[in-house]
Amino acid sequence: MSKSLPLAFSLAIDAMGGDGAPDVVLDGLEIAAERHPQARFLLVGDQVRLAPLLALRKRAAKACEIRHADDVIPGDMKPTLALRVRRSSMRVAIDAVAAGEAAGVISAGNTGALMAMATIVIKTLPEIARPALAAIAPSGRGDVVMLDLGANVQCDARNLVEFAIMGDAFARAVLGLPQPSFGLLNVGSEELKGDERVRQAAEVLRESHISAGFHGFIEGHDILAGTVDVIVTDGFTGNVALKTGEGALKLMRDLLRQVFTSSLPAKMGYLLARPALDKLREWMDPRRYNGAILLGLNGVVVKSHGGTDALGFAHAVDVAMDMVTHGFNDRIREGLARLSATPLANLSTAKS
Amino acid sequence: MSKSLPLAFSLAIDAMGGDGAPDVVLDGLEIAAERHPQARFLLVGDQVRLAPLLALRKRAAKACEIRHADDVIPGDMKPTLALRVRRSSMRVAIDAVAAGEAAGVISAGNTGALMAMATIVIKTLPEIARPALAAIAPSGRGDVVMLDLGANVQCDARNLVEFAIMGDAFARAVLGLPQPSFGLLNVGSEELKGDERVRQAAEVLRESHISAGFHGFIEGHDILAGTVDVIVTDGFTGNVALKTGEGALKLMRDLLRQVFTSSLPAKMGYLLARPALDKLREWMDPRRYNGAILLGLNGVVVKSHGGTDALGFAHAVDVAMDMVTHGFNDRIREGLARLSATPLANLSTAKS
Repeated sequence: MSKSLPLAFSLAIDAMGGDGAPDVVLDGLEIAAERHPQARFLLVGDQVRLAPLLALRKRAAKACEIRHADDVIPGDMKPTLALRVRRSSMRVAIDAVAAGEAAGVISAGNTGALMAMATIVIKTLPEIARPALAAIAPSGRGDVVMLDLGANVQCDARNLVEFAIMGDAFARAVLGLPQPSFGLLNVGSEELKGDERVRQAAEVLRESHISAGFHGFIEGHDILAGTVDVIVTDGFTGNVALKTGEGALKLMRDLLRQVFTSSLPAKMGYLLARPALDKLREWMDPRRYNGAILLGLNGVVVKSHGGTDALGFAHAVDVAMDMVTHGFNDRIREGLARLSATPLANLSTAKS
Repeated sequence: MSKSLPLAFSLAIDAMGGDGAPDVVLDGLEIAAERHPQARFLLVGDQVRLAPLLALRKRAAKACEIRHADDVIPGDMKPTLALRVRRSSMRVAIDAVAAGEAAGVISAGNTGALMAMATIVIKTLPEIARPALAAIAPSGRGDVVMLDLGANVQCDARNLVEFAIMGDAFARAVLGLPQPSFGLLNVGSEELKGDERVRQAAEVLRESHISAGFHGFIEGHDILAGTVDVIVTDGFTGNVALKTGEGALKLMRDLLRQVFTSSLPAKMGYLLARPALDKLREWMDPRRYNGAILLGLNGVVVKSHGGTDALGFAHAVDVAMDMVTHGFNDRIREGLARLSATPLANLSTAKS
């Protein structure tokens, strides 16, 4: 995935994954093609269905090449079963990355299937024990990155250190931060808090080449406060924390809607405060944060939310393109090479 | 702590713990004494300071008896050190519960010290391996209970099952629910999700006497959605999830304040929508949710937030009084006795 590789396609796109596929995907690519005029997309799916739909979207049509795939992975298919469906749109798109035809893949389909398939077919970077699922979230002080969000339910200290390095590289490539700060999620900010795992990871990070950005332990309320740019945690805690925060923001949106429709004066109040409320709504817009990213593989893998719209899908393309054009994996390789001379070498872990 | 025991005091109160002590504590008791006319409080702290302040509060003065204690545990003192301070207000209050003089204790002081001291002095119920920290939180469908919130950073399946039984008893006693529903926090709602620990706990709960209320696995967004009345999880995840949710609501309060002060029309909009917004503000008011409760000990132990005001402290008294008057610990004993004939017996765990 080096930047100098003359790849035929920027991204392979699973055209058939997600609730509104393929229309939402194609509408998303129409937006993305305008934002990224240099991008080339390999559009994978049912050729007979895709060809006429693509022809209706001028910009996408110029940026895309269709590759036929017979099958679609259903949203509820078990990953182990999905791995056996060799001619699915998801699989053919992933195969294109493994074959060096595309730098990355985007799918709005079955998350578990995408993670399992991508990990097995594209494979992890040689230095990485386990890939991690990351996402961008809003905070009181700008966008933040959180990982792992569920790729690894159980993590050891070494996994956490690797997640920190990948999160640092991601924040540089996608958020454009020259020196991201990062913290380890824990039950308290004091050095002695938490379990052996987080304390050991903290010790290694304090002596690592990215120690300048290491804020130490952070707590749940630091996530949305934006205390750090990168939140590092195990997949169980990260998954619960992300969904808790999303749930809180969704509840607030629902309650505000109730407030401003509860009476005529409230409705008038809404109209008066609307410009400021619209900014708040935009800040909370889940489409802006669409796209979970599987980090640590030999290629860029982005999962778009299954229920998103065209704008949301276009955001997922933005994230993937940022990673491709900013040489995200090269940064991780550099980071891990620099860390190999440090105490990370002492943290053994089984390659899963 | 049986209801029939003729205890001298309903609750022992650490008068010196928390940021605004002893004034906030005394003001809180003045409110509590009106709400609970039958309650008797053992007010523990510096007699010379407390006596004139108590005399100024008529209702509290009638409900309280002062017991002198020389020392105060500082907010940043390590629990191991705090355990050695025998004449602190916190310790003397806890000693009163252990001696059978009071049914429970409330402190707004050092959380770690309170948990360590209460566990060692009051001791766990014979059937409970480890006490758990619980709290009440708002949700889209009414108040919910969550536990553990950090008393146990690492938990096994048996701990989770015990937390479920304690949470069920708590929801009956404090939320007044005849048949609480409860769920195990996990990274997905399907049966095969998560680690061995949560899957094993779910298996036992499905066959337990409280299986009727068992909703199965829940996810982070279910907490504030109010999918279940009782959220059961390990102390690491619970602590992070609670603080994430609190952080999200705090951020929303801040952002709404910004919205409604951003322009003159927005300010007018606020005035028009104010009745509905005030209801929302009240729903989010952290004082309504003041009080973390240490469950599983031979007495009621409530930690009030150190920075709360009198109303918040009075809420902590409400929770403790509900537990005392509804025979919370008797319910737990019954629940555990009924469970002893079930597969819980096969889940061995070390008593910590």
